[in-house]
Amino acid sequence: MGQKVGIIMGSDSDLAIMQEAAESLKDFGISYEITVISAHRTPERAFEYARTAEERGLAVIIAGAGGAAHLAGIIAAMTPLPVIGVPILSKSLSGMDSLFSMVQMPKGVPVASVAINGAANAGILAAQILGVSDKSIRNSIKKYKEKMKQEVLEKAKKVEGM
Amino acid sequence: MGQKVGIIMGSDSDLAIMQEAAESLKDFGISYEITVISAHRTPERAFEYARTAEERGLAVIIAGAGGAAHLAGIIAAMTPLPVIGVPILSKSLSGMDSLFSMVQMPKGVPVASVAINGAANAGILAAQILGVSDKSIRNSIKKYKEKMKQEVLEKAKKVEGM
Amino acid sequence: MGQKVGIIMGSDSDLAIMQEAAESLKDFGISYEITVISAHRTPERAFEYARTAEERGLAVIIAGAGGAAHLAGIIAAMTPLPVIGVPILSKSLSGMDSLFSMVQMPKGVPVASVAINGAANAGILAAQILGVSDKSIRNSIKKYKEKMKQEVLEKAKKVEGM
Amino acid sequence: MGQKVGIIMGSDSDLAIMQEAAESLKDFGISYEITVISAHRTPERAFEYARTAEERGLAVIIAGAGGAAHLAGIIAAMTPLPVIGVPILSKSLSGMDSLFSMVQMPKGVPVASVAINGAANAGILAAQILGVSDKSIRNSIKKYKEKMKQEVLEKAKKVEGM
Amino acid sequence: MGQKVGIIMGSDSDLAIMQEAAESLKDFGISYEITVISAHRTPERAFEYARTAEERGLAVIIAGAGGAAHLAGIIAAMTPLPVIGVPILSKSLSGMDSLFSMVQMPKGVPVASVAINGAANAGILAAQILGVSDKSIRNSIKKYKEKMKQEVLEKAKKVEGM
Amino acid sequence: MGQKVGIIMGSDSDLAIMQEAAESLKDFGISYEITVISAHRTPERAFEYARTAEERGLAVIIAGAGGAAHLAGIIAAMTPLPVIGVPILSKSLSGMDSLFSMVQMPKGVPVASVAINGAANAGILAAQILGVSDKSIRNSIKKYKEKMKQEVLEKAKKVEGM
Amino acid sequence: MGQKVGIIMGSDSDLAIMQEAAESLKDFGISYEITVISAHRTPERAFEYARTAEERGLAVIIAGAGGAAHLAGIIAAMTPLPVIGVPILSKSLSGMDSLFSMVQMPKGVPVASVAINGAANAGILAAQILGVSDKSIRNSIKKYKEKMKQEVLEKAKKVEGM
Amino acid sequence: MGQKVGIIMGSDSDLAIMQEAAESLKDFGISYEITVISAHRTPERAFEYARTAEERGLAVIIAGAGGAAHLAGIIAAMTPLPVIGVPILSKSLSGMDSLFSMVQMPKGVPVASVAINGAANAGILAAQILGVSDKSIRNSIKKYKEKMKQEVLEKAKKVEGM
Repeated sequence: MGQKVGIIMGSDSDLAIMQEAAESLKDFGISYEITVISAHRTPERAFEYARTAEERGLAVIIAGAGGAAHLAGIIAAMTPLPVIGVPILSKSLSGMDSLFSMVQMPKGVPVASVAINGAANAGILAAQILGVSDKSIRNSIKKYKEKMKQEVLEKAKKVEGM
Repeated sequence: MGQKVGIIMGSDSDLAIMQEAAESLKDFGISYEITVISAHRTPERAFEYARTAEERGLAVIIAGAGGAAHLAGIIAAMTPLPVIGVPILSKSLSGMDSLFSMVQMPKGVPVASVAINGAANAGILAAQILGVSDKSIRNSIKKYKEKMKQEVLEKAKKVEGM
Repeated sequence: MGQKVGIIMGSDSDLAIMQEAAESLKDFGISYEITVISAHRTPERAFEYARTAEERGLAVIIAGAGGAAHLAGIIAAMTPLPVIGVPILSKSLSGMDSLFSMVQMPKGVPVASVAINGAANAGILAAQILGVSDKSIRNSIKKYKEKMKQEVLEKAKKVEGM
Repeated sequence: MGQKVGIIMGSDSDLAIMQEAAESLKDFGISYEITVISAHRTPERAFEYARTAEERGLAVIIAGAGGAAHLAGIIAAMTPLPVIGVPILSKSLSGMDSLFSMVQMPKGVPVASVAINGAANAGILAAQILGVSDKSIRNSIKKYKEKMKQEVLEKAKKVEGM
Repeated sequence: MGQKVGIIMGSDSDLAIMQEAAESLKDFGISYEITVISAHRTPERAFEYARTAEERGLAVIIAGAGGAAHLAGIIAAMTPLPVIGVPILSKSLSGMDSLFSMVQMPKGVPVASVAINGAANAGILAAQILGVSDKSIRNSIKKYKEKMKQEVLEKAKKVEGM
Repeated sequence: MGQKVGIIMGSDSDLAIMQEAAESLKDFGISYEITVISAHRTPERAFEYARTAEERGLAVIIAGAGGAAHLAGIIAAMTPLPVIGVPILSKSLSGMDSLFSMVQMPKGVPVASVAINGAANAGILAAQILGVSDKSIRNSIKKYKEKMKQEVLEKAKKVEGM
Repeated sequence: MGQKVGIIMGSDSDLAIMQEAAESLKDFGISYEITVISAHRTPERAFEYARTAEERGLAVIIAGAGGAAHLAGIIAAMTPLPVIGVPILSKSLSGMDSLFSMVQMPKGVPVASVAINGAANAGILAAQILGVSDKSIRNSIKKYKEKMKQEVLEKAKKVEGM
Repeated sequence: MGQKVGIIMGSDSDLAIMQEAAESLKDFGISYEITVISAHRTPERAFEYARTAEERGLAVIIAGAGGAAHLAGIIAAMTPLPVIGVPILSKSLSGMDSLFSMVQMPKGVPVASVAINGAANAGILAAQILGVSDKSIRNSIKKYKEKMKQEVLEKAKKVEGM
């Protein structure tokens, strides 16, 4: 059977960021596949990926891209699956280009955008989506939230003690 | 049993926009509840809503707010459910305030942001999320995409014939 | 034989603006076709359009879109023809979303962007491109520039005489 | 008895900046407590902190956060105390996200925002607020302003002498 | 004896907005004076106002201005009182000029900025500041927050009933 | 006979970026000339260059500039040739100044803008323009697109294999 | 003898704004000429104007333009006279395009920019420049400042009396 | 007798930039004074400087400041002399705060803004202003422009020869 989540990115230079999505999913025990698909350099591959995503067993797609970040939108155009977009920080325009071109989708074709470079959150969001029908993942999210809370409390103590 | 999707908004002045989320859900035959919750004016209510959302049977939450749009983030902080954010266009700053304060969430607590005023897409995204485990909703999304395509083709013909 | 220039737009709501591209071309006696193609609502149509553009005899493509304006980029991904992009002014973000998502294309796949709502200039740019190998169009451009100059001079006289 | 000013920050990575608020307060001889509270990772703690702030004797709260900086707004929602917000410079968007999400509060729940990374000024503003009813602090502020003036005059002499 | 709060604005065209600060104060039973002072057109008047503010019995100053909004900063330069700034929405730049020139004060001279056109909140913030040492005002703020909550709940019921 | 493409830049500090346009053209076997012309420091030279561009055999002009980037617009004002603009990233304003002053041309005088620092794409766009009437260049573009695709596929395999 | 100040604008649609510069000059009794010159549509005219400005007796030039506002910069490139730029508010980008393309001039060729649509101030600045060597104009400026002060004081009284 | 040009800056940290204004003036043989004046930390000094500037023989004032850059505006409020503003690049907001708060002055009180960090141009602009009535300075500007042209031509040759 196929993987649950497909992680794709527009360029291998996005890997350092997008790896965090993979790590989030690993933490939740969710299987994933990861690859590079450029909406502009390999458009047929993007179409093929989107068109076959459902039948290959994917439940959610995470797409990261920077600049004129069309990848998530193009994938969303051709799949009924929820698509999560990760705007990658670009060298100019402070990431506004990546964010605006990812989130400002027209009526009918949503992309679920997370923060600029927020790939870890894209993984968590994918888990939350899968958790809608999977109690075990839902429980993992609750534990993750609890663990996160404990970490903040420890840091709080350190700061208080300074 | 509770509704599938909770639609909330920071102010009743957001209703005209957020109504579109409800309409999207209605089109997909998905039950929803809709109400006003202000993260700043009714914080306890926001907490209560978020804390009980799962046990009340909600699967997805859609939160719309403008300006310093904290509602989606605060709800996301206290529920393991996926939270979709709709940045509402504000009078100043061209909607940048609403968008930035909704999407730029820290690691651990994602909000799935759609376009500024993109409430209709928030409804569709909720449907896509429910469609992960519900074949019937998945099929409705496919039909919706097909219908949308037909509408564009008809408009294309009109423009071509001009 | 096919038309020289293909004018496409993401939505029929862009028609009022994109019509100006058609008028520019008409003024230069350049044949064109005009239609609606949505990268997100009719992706296959966009692919088909781009893939067959060259063989159908098109020399230049003009694509107008707003918001997450992916149309020009997606077309450019699949044709060796020069693609001119017209960012359409959006309701929020002052047109920054349309402009940034059109112009900030990655290495390898350029889009020739003109000003926000600058469809008339897209038509002129298409004429300039065709004028590279067509003396008659080149001469029309020179005449257009001369006429434009005369119009400014007349306006200048009016202002001077006030 | 409790401290006069509560300094909180969304993450321990904000400490280097927020420490300057503490130093300002120390210079004015004002007691303070300092800790980490995340609106998103420890929402109950944020609520508890805000709800008990007055009874614990706090007079003013200073809250620093970056990105989708909700901390100050959420605290302000649940306390009648004046809340000062310090937008922390984020990696993307040049700090616009932090500033806009902190300052653009809706009617009824103000946050007193200072400059991006302006924690030292947050401390001074807290002193000015306490100085409204405390002559001794008021006098310290006057002396601080006088000292600041002398420092500028000395620097001016150095520059003039170059 | 003098008034508690001084409301000033850079131009009488700011009056419609700044009036809301006065109304907030009236609701809390706080006395105020209101006038027009331009940092650029009446600089001596601005200096005089700032220099005598404390001795005339003012406790807090609220300053509204748009564009290159220097008024709050210049007043803050010459008084030990807390100064609240209201950036007034300008015709160009979406209010960014007013906000940035008000909030980005250098170390040593804070201005407590509220939202663009947020004059009502400036009045509430002034009340919160006075409430630090005045139990009666503190109680009024608590009541105001309670009333605000009730209003939201009523609106919520209306929306729920639709 | 003259070169096909003229590459000009506002300052020799733009050379590192603009060199990429030259390299793109070399890859397509297109002849070019490259020089420095400042619209502001050598305006007569800019005029002379633009006025003689056509008769010297140039078919396309690529102009790179940063800040108040007027070069492309001024050249476009005086030649019927298509002019491609490369906004060079400036130290302040994240490149918005360069981009806006290049792309926002008035009706009648288009500049074909590519991405900030997108000089390589300017070269490719010039090739696409020449390819309108030159089958051999058209074929080179198709090969380039194919090669680009292969490179992405190889990178994709590496990422998949990690 | 020629006029003292030359007022030029890129388009007659800028006249309503640029008229205010003329009115300012009239108030100071300074002679001026006013006309339309487009850097892009009538570049030779722009060059001719700039090159002959000094010998025709002009002392200062005021240039207004919107969008890719190159007029002031191009004029400044070819005259030793001080050039004042008035960025005209554009339909998109909130005037950022006009302002950035006018003010961000490279080293060696300054443009003295005033506020977006600030033509009245351009006239006053021209008067201040002429006032450097003309006592009578200097005195007029002093009187203007005094009159402006009185007008604010009258408005202040009205507001105080409300 | 006093100096011709007064160079002031809001902080000695602006010196590295503002020194370039001094160097420009030196190149033109124009006498100047240079010092630090903070509108916010030494407001009386700013007032005193502005009020006595004319009688001390200054003809032009150059004021550099960053962030909420009020210095130029406050000086301009109290002198009939032309005031040139240099927005200093700030750590956040890409210099937009410095630029907007300097250039967006209200009607009646212009500041002649140059580019962000454009202190060299401020010096040249001051020379152009003095050149209105001083033939010798006017001639120096012409020579400067000629020299600048030669430098570009030499750089052009180098680039052409590569």
